[in-house]
Amino acid sequence: MKHTKINDLLGGKGLLHEVKAKGWVKTFRNNQFIALNDGSTINNIQCVVDLDKFPAELLKKVHTGAAISVRGTLVESQGAGQNVEIQVEHLKVYGEANPEEYPIQPKKHSLEFLRENAHLRIRTNMFGAIMRVRSVLSYAVHKYFQDNGFFYFNAPIITGSDAEGAGEMFRVTNLDLNNLPRTEEGKIDFKEDFFGKTTNLTVSGQLEAETYAMALGSVYTFGPTFRAENSNTSRHLAEFWMIEPEVAFNNLDDNMDLAEDFIKYVINYVLDKCADDLAFLDKRLQDEEKTKPQAERSEMTLLEKLRFVVDNNFKRVSYTEAVDILRNSKPNKNKKFKYIIDGWGADLQSEHERYLVEKHFKCPVILFDYPAEIKAFYMRMNEDGKTVRAMDILFPGIGEIVGGSQREERYDVLLEKIEKMGIDKEELWWYLDTRKFGTAPHSGFGLGFERLVLFATGMTNIRDVIPFPRTPQNAEF
Amino acid sequence: MKHTKINDLLGGKGLLHEVKAKGWVKTFRNNQFIALNDGSTINNIQCVVDLDKFPAELLKKVHTGAAISVRGTLVESQGAGQNVEIQVEHLKVYGEANPEEYPIQPKKHSLEFLRENAHLRIRTNMFGAIMRVRSVLSYAVHKYFQDNGFFYFNAPIITGSDAEGAGEMFRVTNLDLNNLPRTEEGKIDFKEDFFGKTTNLTVSGQLEAETYAMALGSVYTFGPTFRAENSNTSRHLAEFWMIEPEVAFNNLDDNMDLAEDFIKYVINYVLDKCADDLAFLDKRLQDEEKTKPQAERSEMTLLEKLRFVVDNNFKRVSYTEAVDILRNSKPNKNKKFKYIIDGWGADLQSEHERYLVEKHFKCPVILFDYPAEIKAFYMRMNEDGKTVRAMDILFPGIGEIVGGSQREERYDVLLEKIEKMGIDKEELWWYLDTRKFGTAPHSGFGLGFERLVLFATGMTNIRDVIPFPRTPQNAEF
Repeated sequence: MKHTKINDLLGGKGLLHEVKAKGWVKTFRNNQFIALNDGSTINNIQCVVDLDKFPAELLKKVHTGAAISVRGTLVESQGAGQNVEIQVEHLKVYGEANPEEYPIQPKKHSLEFLRENAHLRIRTNMFGAIMRVRSVLSYAVHKYFQDNGFFYFNAPIITGSDAEGAGEMFRVTNLDLNNLPRTEEGKIDFKEDFFGKTTNLTVSGQLEAETYAMALGSVYTFGPTFRAENSNTSRHLAEFWMIEPEVAFNNLDDNMDLAEDFIKYVINYVLDKCADDLAFLDKRLQDEEKTKPQAERSEMTLLEKLRFVVDNNFKRVSYTEAVDILRNSKPNKNKKFKYIIDGWGADLQSEHERYLVEKHFKCPVILFDYPAEIKAFYMRMNEDGKTVRAMDILFPGIGEIVGGSQREERYDVLLEKIEKMGIDKEELWWYLDTRKFGTAPHSGFGLGFERLVLFATGMTNIRDVIPFPRTPQNAEF
Repeated sequence: MKHTKINDLLGGKGLLHEVKAKGWVKTFRNNQFIALNDGSTINNIQCVVDLDKFPAELLKKVHTGAAISVRGTLVESQGAGQNVEIQVEHLKVYGEANPEEYPIQPKKHSLEFLRENAHLRIRTNMFGAIMRVRSVLSYAVHKYFQDNGFFYFNAPIITGSDAEGAGEMFRVTNLDLNNLPRTEEGKIDFKEDFFGKTTNLTVSGQLEAETYAMALGSVYTFGPTFRAENSNTSRHLAEFWMIEPEVAFNNLDDNMDLAEDFIKYVINYVLDKCADDLAFLDKRLQDEEKTKPQAERSEMTLLEKLRFVVDNNFKRVSYTEAVDILRNSKPNKNKKFKYIIDGWGADLQSEHERYLVEKHFKCPVILFDYPAEIKAFYMRMNEDGKTVRAMDILFPGIGEIVGGSQREERYDVLLEKIEKMGIDKEELWWYLDTRKFGTAPHSGFGLGFERLVLFATGMTNIRDVIPFPRTPQNAEF
């Protein structure tokens, strides 16, 4: 007979009938109660074994981590803590997990230990919960855009362009590094490389997405992007997934509306679909908070934070207003900031963003109209000639989660900017074409998916919300 | 006022009211009828302009490709070919498209010309249709798996492993190629590289997905994969998107059932959701077919082919049976095959696969139980000791669209195979762990997404179903 997912059995599917379940043993208590999990839910099903019915040899194999199949009647449970249980009549062990060797024993493991065992950490309750939330969140991303008339656009991962300047890039090559081909002048001959020129891993699909928005109207990317930056922090990855919507005819206000609506939708979606996993993660965070001094504890639990984001408007503040607030703030006057804000034009640091979000406004904040000098070439210049139509969304505990802008759609203005910033305009011929032929106002933003998962799960290190993190000195598995 | 998507206007939204539409001019006929498209649908909305109401200067700017905004009343159309039209009262031109320079004029362009203008080809009816179908198909992939209890798993793109051997890999590096660091022995010192070792772009996420299936039960990947192979064909890309489900406790029959059910679901989904785009692509293919000699034309139209796949069972045939059929086939006896099949054990070539699918069975075929010698190390050995539980799905016109297997879950058998094939077992320590701890039968497959899009759109060159194709000597845009 076919086995049934434990999530369905716990929902009462097959009650009072013979059912089969397959999964991994979480615990085996008193040689009688197997807590079985198959990953379909964080909850285990209790399988009750009558000691006398099974050979001792077989039961000895039922350790934490063993893969087994059980068959028996699904009945209402007598014990506390579960509604149903399986009265086991048949038991099969597929694979044991020697307790002397199996690293994932039912006890507390450090997050660092689990990172070193990233292939096995998914077998813990915590990582099961995180990765199910990640999966549901990613589906919510697609569902939101598809339900709202967007088309999914796959930006190229290998790119011949390095003009965007969003960060350091990884080189992609097929050349034999031990025997590099040379031109007559002795330079490396990249004509011999796979693509006939130098290529890199993309840092953003935005520029290509713009070409598609100028035909399909509303598009979004959701794919991996890369930064070869030596940032060994809890917020940075060398490889991460990014979501980049781009919408023709949207101005910056529309763009802010879209970003806010989108974030609220996906958070609401996981609140709705991942209640059990979020309840577990909420409790985990509360337990962790209890180990901290009172003053360092969060004011809100994970679930409260998520509901707060869904229920409240994001505060929209211009860069100029934000600088005024910061200049007059206590930590600035008392020189508690590492970087003192003394005038207009400075790039805001993480400490300033956190002050605005966590101390001053106490809610997600959208900053807009930044100085042109500190922003990318493609952002639309305002009438004032010194600010651009950029926006960043700042989240409590996370910092910048979204960066976006209305794009400069005027050919002459864009070209002048490109030349002024010393960017090779020949390389961007195709991008300039979009302004030459049928140009129109348009806007978009980028959202780092892992930062969203961090926020949704209440985790604090970004390495714990992606299956196999890539960071400096680490590409294991 | 807010503008409305043309797809909604054509559905009658705002009928008899003032509406606004924004998009790009397809044609401007008789200085009176603008066919306007915004990418939300392949269909244009007719915008009727009263010549006397607008300055000639303004109307002169309304060329093919120009971006405009129109405001006016949405009325039932008098003319043939459309139900509704906009009687324009206000007209604004955002961006012109000089007919002397704009490459995408309303005439037939060669596919090669369009590939060279991949940033603009999306503005044609054909590529709009293809990319909308691609988007809907990708959503169907997520929807199928999420509705069936699978979790989305993001395999790492940069990998330190090169053990899978699915193909040539691209090197990823951050080293300065002009000044490579050297060890004392004069070798390149990859310890100095970003990840402290050599890294490549992934060829498959399967091995990592298996570690997740052994905890979450059912997982799937859907992400980019890479091959550094110098294959300049209409079926190969250096960068393509792959879907790889992996399911704990599934045997090969379950795996075949899953693949067939999945493919039927996603094809059915686009048949349902992309009727207008598919009707256009169906007609395009019929027009193309008419230029061919009778004997080379397809027996079925695109829509007939898609419905055929949805409505018919895939034929399941063992490798051994297939070899018998091929050995006794006319082209084999008449030496019309380039590679003559004279015995058991040969790898099947594209010509053989096409014969089986297109001539012999005339339907999608699932071949299974291949010789162990020609398949990967991780496939489960059968009792006969010479075949493995592999399966390939072959499609008419496309060839192999799916490759999968039941995985070797027995630690000893797997280790022996790894050693026999000369694979570095130290590198696969984490993969072997999945067999050491709680191992269980499991199966999965890989489906090249672009081949699916090829099939669904009736296109014949894979470069035409991905926005910016990467092939040898080509990484433009």
